[in-house]
Amino acid sequence: MSEQYRIALDAMGGDHGLSVVVPAALEALKKFDDIALILVGDEAQIQATLAEHKAATSGRLAIRHASQVVAMDEMPAHAMKNKKDSSMRVAINLVKAGEAEAAVSAGNTGALMATARFVLKTLPGIDRPAICTVIPSMHGHTHMLDLGANVDSEAEHLYQFALMGSELAKAIDNNPNPKVGLLNIGQEAIKGNEQVKAANALLRESPLNYIGYVEGDDIYHGDVDVVVCDGFVGNVALKTSEGLAKMVSAQLKANYSANLFTKLAALISLPVLKSFRRKFDPRRYNGASLLGLQGIVVKSHGGADSFAYANAIGIARTEIIEKVPQRINKQLESLLAERQKA
Amino acid sequence: MSEQYRIALDAMGGDHGLSVVVPAALEALKKFDDIALILVGDEAQIQATLAEHKAATSGRLAIRHASQVVAMDEMPAHAMKNKKDSSMRVAINLVKAGEAEAAVSAGNTGALMATARFVLKTLPGIDRPAICTVIPSMHGHTHMLDLGANVDSEAEHLYQFALMGSELAKAIDNNPNPKVGLLNIGQEAIKGNEQVKAANALLRESPLNYIGYVEGDDIYHGDVDVVVCDGFVGNVALKTSEGLAKMVSAQLKANYSANLFTKLAALISLPVLKSFRRKFDPRRYNGASLLGLQGIVVKSHGGADSFAYANAIGIARTEIIEKVPQRINKQLESLLAERQKA
Repeated sequence: MSEQYRIALDAMGGDHGLSVVVPAALEALKKFDDIALILVGDEAQIQATLAEHKAATSGRLAIRHASQVVAMDEMPAHAMKNKKDSSMRVAINLVKAGEAEAAVSAGNTGALMATARFVLKTLPGIDRPAICTVIPSMHGHTHMLDLGANVDSEAEHLYQFALMGSELAKAIDNNPNPKVGLLNIGQEAIKGNEQVKAANALLRESPLNYIGYVEGDDIYHGDVDVVVCDGFVGNVALKTSEGLAKMVSAQLKANYSANLFTKLAALISLPVLKSFRRKFDPRRYNGASLLGLQGIVVKSHGGADSFAYANAIGIARTEIIEKVPQRINKQLESLLAERQKA
Repeated sequence: MSEQYRIALDAMGGDHGLSVVVPAALEALKKFDDIALILVGDEAQIQATLAEHKAATSGRLAIRHASQVVAMDEMPAHAMKNKKDSSMRVAINLVKAGEAEAAVSAGNTGALMATARFVLKTLPGIDRPAICTVIPSMHGHTHMLDLGANVDSEAEHLYQFALMGSELAKAIDNNPNPKVGLLNIGQEAIKGNEQVKAANALLRESPLNYIGYVEGDDIYHGDVDVVVCDGFVGNVALKTSEGLAKMVSAQLKANYSANLFTKLAALISLPVLKSFRRKFDPRRYNGASLLGLQGIVVKSHGGADSFAYANAIGIARTEIIEKVPQRINKQLESLLAERQKA
């Protein structure tokens, strides 16, 4: 029992709450035999949902009662002040107390970041935690950060994001030397803003495998492992991609449903379309890491289904196994020592 | 002859220069019988390329010699100083002199913007010209600006972009009251940066049909006609979309080419895939407007083929017919008058 990786789940968070988190937990327990999960939330409701799924608590599945829920549209400051017994807060408290090694939540991102930062604190040397996610690319995938935790990031922040993203990529992809790129705009146009130029100078001097500026399309080319940007820019890039993907998928569907002939074509194309969809299934990429904290917190998409949510649990598990916060901390320390020498 | 809309083409600009611009010009002359074109560049080379296409100058197709070419990777300041007889500069000079009513170039964006601004000047009240393009959306298309002419845009600049984009949408789409949105990041995250918040306040007070904040995915939902953002953000959103679209198209192709069965499926799906591709063909959307200048300048994509370049010529024609700079100017004047009253 003691060798299990313990993960606390904010069971009430997200658009679907228990109806997704409970089946996701059961799925993850089957998939990973080295994890134990703590469902945090209204005990009676959790018990009822477990019963619906013909499941019960066990040595690997515990319940921790929490009386409140943070609303998806609640202001972070309001949640911090008034929801001290929320499922989100209690899940993160469990990480702080050492009862869990990671927390997963599909709740309100702003509140999650504020709570995690307040309870767990940032690593020494980190000014701002960042949100990092994995995006499928032509030849694999790309880690991208920040995705909205920070706006108006300064050069030093972008530098810290690069360092954190690089460590995460090393840990998750087992890639000893991930290529890090800084998101900028085209060579033809007026090049970059002041923060990006200053971050470029810092990164050129860093021990990271920094490959220089990349552009928006490079996120999908797959020749870079980590793409670093301000949270405003990263959030827009991610949401824009989501919008385009939805449009393409809807249009493809509409075109294939146009008439009997196209419906037949769709039928024959089914295996092709399915394999295509599988490769880009956003659920397979669900789970964004909150990096720079003294603890592991993974954000599941608010609208995630149980398959997607189980993927986020898997990411938390990997971060525990790979000791991501400790690795980032170690890297920060060696960097700081190097700077003091210089 | 005097009723023709006269458009100057930077015949040497872009990745492919004459080999694209000349056939595009011939195509456009066929398509639009109310335009006359001036090919600006090396006269001997233009003559030779016309001969290759079994074409010659005419009352509707003139040549204006220019001895220099701005390189695609040339710094704008260098081009401004050393390339005063470039095809790009001479084409814009023709607009200034009234010999043409618009210029089209597939050349270096930074140099084009700097040259256009220097030669034509901005409209009174406009601090920074912006680049605006049309993006296909679920139910039509969206105009988006700025796409990279400006980084670190302040609230007043974003406000001006909104006004210019709104006038362009009115002119191009024949839409009397285009819906304008300001690009921001998710409700869940920390909302917006200072510039965006301040621009939001300005736009709420404006006579525009301002619908408030939109997110990246709204660009493709099609419920907004004009999306306004800083040039860094807009450039990243556009390039990210291009990268994703390329990846999706490459993967779809790869999946359909996997084996004999999938190749058969592709054959049967051909009409569906073709109609899909036609709808999203980026060539049909080629031609970005440089707005805020005392004259019409349209930027064609550097890698555009002749079909795409002819589309950019069509956009220049529409802007001439609709008198876009004059409309923006009028809107600015009435706005200024309103502000003085207030």
